[in-house]
Amino acid sequence: MFEIDRSSKTLLVDQIRSAIIARIESFQWVQGSRLPSVRALSKQLGVSNFTVSSAYEDLVAQHIIESRPGAGYYILAVNPAGVQDLDTLIPPSSLHAGFLYRALDPSQYDVPASSGYLPPAWLVDAVPASVTGRLIRNTLSCSVPAPAAGSQALRSVIASKLRDIHINASSSQVVVTVGATHAFSLIRNVMLRPGDYLLVEDPSYLLLQLKLIKDRDFNIITVPRLDDGPDIEAMEAMVVKYRPKVFLTQTLIHNPTGGNTSPAKGFRILSLAEKYDFHVVEDDIFGSLSAKQTVRLASLDGLNRTFYLSGFSKVLSPALRLGYVAAPPAFVERLVEQKMYNLLCGSSLDETIVTYTLESGRYQHHLDELRQRVIQEHVRAREWLGKLGVGFDEHSVDGLFLWARFPDHVNIRSLIEQAHDGRIFIAPGSLFSNTHAYDQYIRLNVSHCNDPRFRQFIAARLGAVKAVTGAATAM
Amino acid sequence: MFEIDRSSKTLLVDQIRSAIIARIESFQWVQGSRLPSVRALSKQLGVSNFTVSSAYEDLVAQHIIESRPGAGYYILAVNPAGVQDLDTLIPPSSLHAGFLYRALDPSQYDVPASSGYLPPAWLVDAVPASVTGRLIRNTLSCSVPAPAAGSQALRSVIASKLRDIHINASSSQVVVTVGATHAFSLIRNVMLRPGDYLLVEDPSYLLLQLKLIKDRDFNIITVPRLDDGPDIEAMEAMVVKYRPKVFLTQTLIHNPTGGNTSPAKGFRILSLAEKYDFHVVEDDIFGSLSAKQTVRLASLDGLNRTFYLSGFSKVLSPALRLGYVAAPPAFVERLVEQKMYNLLCGSSLDETIVTYTLESGRYQHHLDELRQRVIQEHVRAREWLGKLGVGFDEHSVDGLFLWARFPDHVNIRSLIEQAHDGRIFIAPGSLFSNTHAYDQYIRLNVSHCNDPRFRQFIAARLGAVKAVTGAATAM
Repeated sequence: MFEIDRSSKTLLVDQIRSAIIARIESFQWVQGSRLPSVRALSKQLGVSNFTVSSAYEDLVAQHIIESRPGAGYYILAVNPAGVQDLDTLIPPSSLHAGFLYRALDPSQYDVPASSGYLPPAWLVDAVPASVTGRLIRNTLSCSVPAPAAGSQALRSVIASKLRDIHINASSSQVVVTVGATHAFSLIRNVMLRPGDYLLVEDPSYLLLQLKLIKDRDFNIITVPRLDDGPDIEAMEAMVVKYRPKVFLTQTLIHNPTGGNTSPAKGFRILSLAEKYDFHVVEDDIFGSLSAKQTVRLASLDGLNRTFYLSGFSKVLSPALRLGYVAAPPAFVERLVEQKMYNLLCGSSLDETIVTYTLESGRYQHHLDELRQRVIQEHVRAREWLGKLGVGFDEHSVDGLFLWARFPDHVNIRSLIEQAHDGRIFIAPGSLFSNTHAYDQYIRLNVSHCNDPRFRQFIAARLGAVKAVTGAATAM
Repeated sequence: MFEIDRSSKTLLVDQIRSAIIARIESFQWVQGSRLPSVRALSKQLGVSNFTVSSAYEDLVAQHIIESRPGAGYYILAVNPAGVQDLDTLIPPSSLHAGFLYRALDPSQYDVPASSGYLPPAWLVDAVPASVTGRLIRNTLSCSVPAPAAGSQALRSVIASKLRDIHINASSSQVVVTVGATHAFSLIRNVMLRPGDYLLVEDPSYLLLQLKLIKDRDFNIITVPRLDDGPDIEAMEAMVVKYRPKVFLTQTLIHNPTGGNTSPAKGFRILSLAEKYDFHVVEDDIFGSLSAKQTVRLASLDGLNRTFYLSGFSKVLSPALRLGYVAAPPAFVERLVEQKMYNLLCGSSLDETIVTYTLESGRYQHHLDELRQRVIQEHVRAREWLGKLGVGFDEHSVDGLFLWARFPDHVNIRSLIEQAHDGRIFIAPGSLFSNTHAYDQYIRLNVSHCNDPRFRQFIAARLGAVKAVTGAATAM
């Protein structure tokens, strides 16, 4: 019949279930035929009746087999894949939504060279085993809803971490959100009225996000992003002309360029905000991975005109959706109301996991390790890509992204298509911009782009197979 | 010094940490003084060095003690509560937001008699232990982000469960959300333009939700909710007058009245939708707890004009935030785009837990048990409240809520204030209505309101202590 593997990490129940599905899918067992009795199969496999009957029950719940009382279990479907309803959702048709949609679906690619996430293997120990233990023991705290603003324990530990990086926040200024994107969404709803202007850098991941939806009721204007922050003269001209309500920026590890805003520019941004009465939204989602740790705007400003937002999907696990905003006190209540209107409250399971993890002494150590690893991969990737003629702007070597300028003879569009066919995910620079200035650029994630499959692909495309094979051997 | 309790379920690390904090808070140990060495304390308590040093490390991370290399650990703060930043967030000032905010914060009350959730004890086995086991073994699947629409596995199993209740949905019509409230928020953004009208029943929890935010750009109009659904004549008049784009309703266990919409009314609602070209949003968050299982609108309509939404915080755990919408095919892509714009994607941890749980054969059994328990408590609560002169409308006895009409001599406002002082949470009927018709009503959750503390409180307030003490003894 079939065998089970006791040394496998897969539960026996799951092994039995998979084996049965495999039999059905390969038409060895056909619709309407009777399965072995629970007793017969458990005896044959040397497992308990309970194990086999659990596997059968699960298959009944999945409509793959049925239980006929008194007669046993029978196979329902010729093809369980069909019954399981595997017609997949078509990604959104718009360019920007389609890109983000694919970027989030890990099943689509072998090498997510342009993704925004770290490899799962880097995060295996991010949530310490002791946290899982505490969680299982404290089931009660996980069976109550999370308060709308987030649990007091989580907001306290976040405020304390913010003070560590010199942002003087009280826990009453912290609103927990479903990721940093959600925090920005709440801020938009609180700060922007129809017809208002929002200023954002170009290029910018945040611009990509904003382009997603066509039917928003505020206007997006842009200022060029330079190596050390926005072009301040251009910014003042835009501010004078449009009087935006909000400026949206990333100070550390700007996505996609990887640059850091200099403290001097930070000061000038805040002076403009004061003079022209706008608010600053500082997205610091990658900040803890920066080796430079330049001063953040929220630290200079004291959360007076600055909304500081961040989250944990990058450094703990992309499987958690947990972010937060630290806001000027006057806006906290309205942010909480917006959150309640939008989704009532967050997942207290996710909140508890993050609270325990941040409270543990190992969290800082984990961040330090990640930061070092990112820098190592950054240097390596920049080196081998440079040898192939890929260029980089003159910002400092820091952070998760390489904003890679490919030689003019490379057709970016066909490069992306060929990568896609080879299950490699790369993102064209044009997605991040309103201009054509970045049409020869690609955003690369250094934690994925030293993968030999990606190296080989790029080397072949750039016509320099020999040089890279050597480099790969020396890895 | 202090003792630890090995029979306690609290981890030793946590016990040590709590004991130290208690010493500091009671000024037995003061700022600047040195803690026992790791070795000395571990020897004294008979625990490992690792346990004590973990507790110390955690306290360092919390800024309660500091490590001075070579010199040991020293107490940083006189009052760790101050350092921990326990200034609490003030609940939103508006009546409706304030109510919902308090309803979500479990630390505020001993008896949440008007809450929308089941008691944690009822849900202890909702997520089977085998699911936790599978989860811990499959860490890899939990370290990738969730696709924007939700994982294919979860959407498939949800579609299959929908077909079980005769809603003919394909997985490609299912969009996973952060709870049912979130699903409704996405639908609003897709379906309503500024100036549009949305029709909702009065009374209704959904009306309460909609009243939350003052600066929305669509109009809310209401139709009276009768025992068996909306008042159809009044509904047609409103529809003719305002031509709403969306009608929002709950078919099973309407919140707060507890009534079910009759199939005949369901048919008339859908006929109106067809005739006057509006869409129906059917919120079925409590439906699986209904003993009647009347036909749902989405089942009659085949998801043609109906958006069906539900979630798992009621029947699995309020700690999970996971809901979904099954939508007419033409709207799926826009819902996914809205979700990406709002928060990119959900928690794949929560998605994985729910997928495994729904796939397990025990899920249906769990629902059956909950349903029976709800009915039992419903009958009990209705009986003892009835004896005290509390009245009920003539809808069927079903579901989580009792829509309780208190005698005229009871001052509802002071009843609520006194309950609040006694750490009992009750919600005035007026919150759920735009009229004064329900000023003598209170929404009660049957799973909490047979609590002896609540019985005693109500009995005392209704001047019938004797009658109820007898009833409580007979419990």
